[in-house]
Amino acid sequence: MAGNPRIDDLMARFRERDRTALARLITIVENRAPEAVAVMEQLYPMAGRAHVVGITGPPGAGKSTLINLMIARLRAQGRSVAVLAIDPSSPFSGGAVLGDRVRMTAHYRDPGVYIRSISTRGSHGGLSRATREVVRVLDAFGHDTIIIETVGVGQTELDVMDLAETVIVVLVPESGDSVQVMKAGLNEIADLFVVNKADRPGADRMKAELEMSVHLRAGPGWRAPVILAQANAGVGIDELLAAIGKHREYLEMHRDQRRLGELRANELLEILTAEIEDRAMRALRNGAAPELLNAVRAGELNPYSAARRIIEDRKTLERLLSGEHRERN
Amino acid sequence: MAGNPRIDDLMARFRERDRTALARLITIVENRAPEAVAVMEQLYPMAGRAHVVGITGPPGAGKSTLINLMIARLRAQGRSVAVLAIDPSSPFSGGAVLGDRVRMTAHYRDPGVYIRSISTRGSHGGLSRATREVVRVLDAFGHDTIIIETVGVGQTELDVMDLAETVIVVLVPESGDSVQVMKAGLNEIADLFVVNKADRPGADRMKAELEMSVHLRAGPGWRAPVILAQANAGVGIDELLAAIGKHREYLEMHRDQRRLGELRANELLEILTAEIEDRAMRALRNGAAPELLNAVRAGELNPYSAARRIIEDRKTLERLLSGEHRERN
Repeated sequence: MAGNPRIDDLMARFRERDRTALARLITIVENRAPEAVAVMEQLYPMAGRAHVVGITGPPGAGKSTLINLMIARLRAQGRSVAVLAIDPSSPFSGGAVLGDRVRMTAHYRDPGVYIRSISTRGSHGGLSRATREVVRVLDAFGHDTIIIETVGVGQTELDVMDLAETVIVVLVPESGDSVQVMKAGLNEIADLFVVNKADRPGADRMKAELEMSVHLRAGPGWRAPVILAQANAGVGIDELLAAIGKHREYLEMHRDQRRLGELRANELLEILTAEIEDRAMRALRNGAAPELLNAVRAGELNPYSAARRIIEDRKTLERLLSGEHRERN
Repeated sequence: MAGNPRIDDLMARFRERDRTALARLITIVENRAPEAVAVMEQLYPMAGRAHVVGITGPPGAGKSTLINLMIARLRAQGRSVAVLAIDPSSPFSGGAVLGDRVRMTAHYRDPGVYIRSISTRGSHGGLSRATREVVRVLDAFGHDTIIIETVGVGQTELDVMDLAETVIVVLVPESGDSVQVMKAGLNEIADLFVVNKADRPGADRMKAELEMSVHLRAGPGWRAPVILAQANAGVGIDELLAAIGKHREYLEMHRDQRRLGELRANELLEILTAEIEDRAMRALRNGAAPELLNAVRAGELNPYSAARRIIEDRKTLERLLSGEHRERN
């Protein structure tokens, strides 16, 4: 893939902070195009500077309003911001996410703000991987802060929060009692809690319960603060940004080299298996083992037996992974 | 794996319809244990008789009550039933699923009814694959009807519905207007609609809207009927079972060999890549490429470059996929 002129051109423009090149490279990475690994290989050393902040919570908690405020403050400090919204494509979400997205367009014309969404639909479990790589592209582009927004409706969306350094869980007094939050494992992922719409009844009680649960779970280390906010009145946003800053300082002071090594090793495994999978998929679809595939199609050969035969036959396997098979275009 | 005495013993007991052996084999398959492919290879020819019915809908629509009624009727007809509940582990679902599960225990002592749940938590995108294989184990065991229940809150759960031959979407008058149902793509997956709690206001309007939307989308072929039900009073259950039966007859009369061939080919691809992934994962974790892995851990080598080197180095790749590396136990 080295020396692909189209990719070289995109990369050159990307380095000059061309947003069209950024958008194209994200698409290449998101779609796992054959060039994706080569692109990521070049971008990898350019990334690692951004602060990645995750925001999750139930629909209607006011996440997008908070994000809009955060963008405004971060921009006022001269920081560039990217927002990556994970669109749950949920059949019962009622389309609130799209509406929220539209409200964010106030920042669309600001060249220091980049907003993009990734749909969970069609990503078939590859969402975490795709999101990590898109975050890395945004990071390599030079964004100071990258905000990942999910509506916490499913495990897939929650997994994405693992990618953030600082995770903010936004709740409202009506989100129910803290027992439910505990049961959902949200207290394990939260580095900060925001109780939004704090002018409503029950906000103080919720804050107290969350603080108690943080206290109960805590060993040594960071204790998630609970911030009362009223995002649509701008209340609590300064406290939130201060807490985000403190958490980042905490992380920098407590960088765990062993854990970092494990994360890198896991990433290698993930990249490797995804790449093997892509190659095998393309090769089989392009006719790398036609007899076996046809026998399976006709119901004459059990697909499990076919898979075992392919793996145990060194030549077929090599053909599958070499990338030497004819490509269909 | 051939000749593994523990697996041979489990298989022998499975053939004698031993439910403990069934449970163990499901666990082996669900956890992708190294024996899983060999197990599936043996079970594959035994499966293919069951009718696989999917039921989805928002929380609180009464799916579990409907399923309980369906079980009772199917049992009265002498049919054996398995229920596979996909547990969304959603942080905001409020635990309703567990409560529903408990209510199903009326059937737990009936040897013609088998109930099992699969958690989306931890399955990391492998849910569809895991579910398909568990369904096949249940099928091979001889269950006449297999019901897959999901709470339609996320894409992952919706993907699972692809595995069902007959998909029932359960709504309640409060589920909102049919526009939302359309937007969510539910009209594409539904073979039958149930408007449950039909004594509540808006049920007739919802039925009419759903029927209109079915009419609008329909080309030639099956048209999803809309059944009004009140599951907790037993109303509509006979109509539902009759419609399920009709849909199965329709499918049998319109079996599409080409589509079946494509499904089988896709299954081979899925099995193959999952197996390659498992082998590569195990081999790398067991020290198949220690220098590369350590360089990545130390941050000296970009994981994308490492992945490319492994794939392009035939010897390392072979070691990864041969299964000849030392296993850690």
